[in-house]
Amino acid sequence: MSIKNRRDMLHNNQRSHYIGQLNESLTGRRVFVAGWVEDIRDIGRLVFVILRDSTGSIQAVARGQHLNQVKEISRQSSVVIGGSIRKSDARDSPIEIGIEEIVVASRAAYPLPIDGTGRVSSSMDKRIDSRALDLRNPSVSGIFKLRGLVLSSIRESLLTKGFLEVNTPKIIGTASEGGANLFGFDYFKRKAYLAQSPQLYKEELIISLDRVFEIGPYFRSEKSHTVRHLSEFTSVDIEAAFVDYEFTMSILEGLVKGVVRKVSGAFSDLAPLRDLALKLGSNGSIEKLTYKQCLEELWNNGEKIEFGADLTDSSLRLLGERHTGFYFITDWPTELKPFYIQDKRQDPELSESFDLQYGYLELASGGTRLHDKERLQARLEQKGLRPENFADHLKVFDWGMPPHAGWGLGFDRFMMVLTDCQNIREVVLFPRDVERLHP
Amino acid sequence: MSIKNRRDMLHNNQRSHYIGQLNESLTGRRVFVAGWVEDIRDIGRLVFVILRDSTGSIQAVARGQHLNQVKEISRQSSVVIGGSIRKSDARDSPIEIGIEEIVVASRAAYPLPIDGTGRVSSSMDKRIDSRALDLRNPSVSGIFKLRGLVLSSIRESLLTKGFLEVNTPKIIGTASEGGANLFGFDYFKRKAYLAQSPQLYKEELIISLDRVFEIGPYFRSEKSHTVRHLSEFTSVDIEAAFVDYEFTMSILEGLVKGVVRKVSGAFSDLAPLRDLALKLGSNGSIEKLTYKQCLEELWNNGEKIEFGADLTDSSLRLLGERHTGFYFITDWPTELKPFYIQDKRQDPELSESFDLQYGYLELASGGTRLHDKERLQARLEQKGLRPENFADHLKVFDWGMPPHAGWGLGFDRFMMVLTDCQNIREVVLFPRDVERLHP
Repeated sequence: MSIKNRRDMLHNNQRSHYIGQLNESLTGRRVFVAGWVEDIRDIGRLVFVILRDSTGSIQAVARGQHLNQVKEISRQSSVVIGGSIRKSDARDSPIEIGIEEIVVASRAAYPLPIDGTGRVSSSMDKRIDSRALDLRNPSVSGIFKLRGLVLSSIRESLLTKGFLEVNTPKIIGTASEGGANLFGFDYFKRKAYLAQSPQLYKEELIISLDRVFEIGPYFRSEKSHTVRHLSEFTSVDIEAAFVDYEFTMSILEGLVKGVVRKVSGAFSDLAPLRDLALKLGSNGSIEKLTYKQCLEELWNNGEKIEFGADLTDSSLRLLGERHTGFYFITDWPTELKPFYIQDKRQDPELSESFDLQYGYLELASGGTRLHDKERLQARLEQKGLRPENFADHLKVFDWGMPPHAGWGLGFDRFMMVLTDCQNIREVVLFPRDVERLHP
Repeated sequence: MSIKNRRDMLHNNQRSHYIGQLNESLTGRRVFVAGWVEDIRDIGRLVFVILRDSTGSIQAVARGQHLNQVKEISRQSSVVIGGSIRKSDARDSPIEIGIEEIVVASRAAYPLPIDGTGRVSSSMDKRIDSRALDLRNPSVSGIFKLRGLVLSSIRESLLTKGFLEVNTPKIIGTASEGGANLFGFDYFKRKAYLAQSPQLYKEELIISLDRVFEIGPYFRSEKSHTVRHLSEFTSVDIEAAFVDYEFTMSILEGLVKGVVRKVSGAFSDLAPLRDLALKLGSNGSIEKLTYKQCLEELWNNGEKIEFGADLTDSSLRLLGERHTGFYFITDWPTELKPFYIQDKRQDPELSESFDLQYGYLELASGGTRLHDKERLQARLEQKGLRPENFADHLKVFDWGMPPHAGWGLGFDRFMMVLTDCQNIREVVLFPRDVERLHP
């Protein structure tokens, strides 16, 4: 077998091995591996090539006839190596590959804009400008492998609980939650908007599908320059019929615990994940504070917030110092919550609502929804919204709309917590913000 | 236990039973069920209520004190019923519920715009205008349950093959495949577009992530009025390094077979699904025809198509009559394919490309990609595109871009095939087209 041309290189359209699959049991065997040259060390009679693919790295050793060819390969070039597995004297690996054939599939052209190994650090901006190369750094690609695993884990958790995955439209004809911060555009001579959330659609769907979830992109024309806002983000949304906010909080708590358990096992070498298991609360459950309890704590710590005021960034930071892991803030003042949130029967100033926090960071928001059409219409008017703009939505409440509840989880923020990243741009492949529309 | 108020109705935030869970082993037991009233039959001393939820339906029987209350409930209202399970004389069910308590959660207001049971048929347009109510029809909601199951099955298939799920941006700064049919909008004083596909991003990602997939919404400003085009659609996209089109065709074939196998088992009562298993080809594999073989067949059947011409709707319908199930059309003329498709070394007029067809319907399109920057630039120019508009993309080819291949599958069209629906609007909850932006 040889790898003299592209066909051979593809090797019956399959690489024989991912590097992560190589181990001592293959000693003496001939293998083909494909990846990129992370490093080259020339010590005269030998040249060491560190070859990496998405699954790991291995040392390959060239000597004799291959020496000159290998010396000319630039770092980050893609190559295919054919050779034999043998014992290695290297500290960090028991095996290496003795190079018998090497083909450059694609040469990296210098200078490169950033260091693909991450040893020389670059600014966040430069890294995103060259994101594909940035991902050659295993600690960067590790974040996105984790992201994929968390997506799977969330879906599994919700499917097990009887939720059906749905796809609702991202192009909408009317502003779903009031109209602020929407991207608008011309849609065949009509005005359309990019959806900010699936809120109204998911509420409508539960009249017949019972329990639904959606994981998808949403859009907010967000002018703020912060480390936790993007204008395109991924949201996990659920909605369920015949349940209230307590029930959906328990679904969310189960989901968070399940993810933490699953990813801790899969990525046990990642310190932030190890610590997370400890941040679920002393008895393994997520602490619940009411909004009023938060006010009390803030008063006791010098922040004199009046009932009805939103918790500002500084208040949340103070709470976050005292509650360092996940916690819920429940029973918010009705006037602070969107028009569709149910007020409490016994105390209409308060609502059946909650936010999931991690320290100062808001991760999710949910609640029991109003299911009575008249009350919903009245609330729209109180909020200064025009019921006629919500005609498509309101008519569904005439078709036997059951009590229901749900939440939305900012998936990218959840990933920030899981990876201990301080900037949301670390966990999104190609972030979009006021400044950034490329690559 | 009673259900006199909303709290009770929610029953500790859990319905005791989904209707689909009820069976004879519960005879004599008291249960709570929640759903909507599909039908009411008043025979004087008794009233029969057909209660349905997302999992099934059951007959509930009111007598005595509940008679008058039940008679006043409108069809499609949401109710909670507490009662005892007992043997039934009904033809279609061995059990029924003897109503002991019934609470109307939300009354349906008449007249309703369409018949929620589907017994009185309505036009596609009327049904979509009232989609949430349309979904009360089990044969409609069945399509979307199947859709969820197919999504799961596709993800499972790709995860097993080592593909990582990624999220690429839907807001893009430059037209990814030329610029036709794009929705454009103002993005903080700059021109932005809605992505038509993740094509360029997925190619870039494989230089480090190796194998990626994305399932997400894409957008095309599609002016045609057909039963198979929408301006917002769901696409399944994959891309893999160090493989060619033959390999990715085998991935797609495995995916299609896996889905057909899985959904046939889950929905064995749906006739179109039973038939599908037969349409995979006589030996269970998907037939492959080259473009040239298609031309020959068309000539032999009176359609005189010259080499290089695209296969028109009428040609595909003719082919579809002869190849009634799934089949691939491979090795298309290079000039018919997008700029990024690899031409064949031995015969550059042909390309390493394929479409997956079902009868006349194109479901997927893929191929080996050009990975050499100079050739890619030359091809852009041949196609009349400006390489400077692709600067972000082209620079990635300087970073050791390996050979790679992939495909995109129109998920909604695949669902049309699986459900035997002739209109793509049947398989999309809230379709978007030239005429439709609501609900």
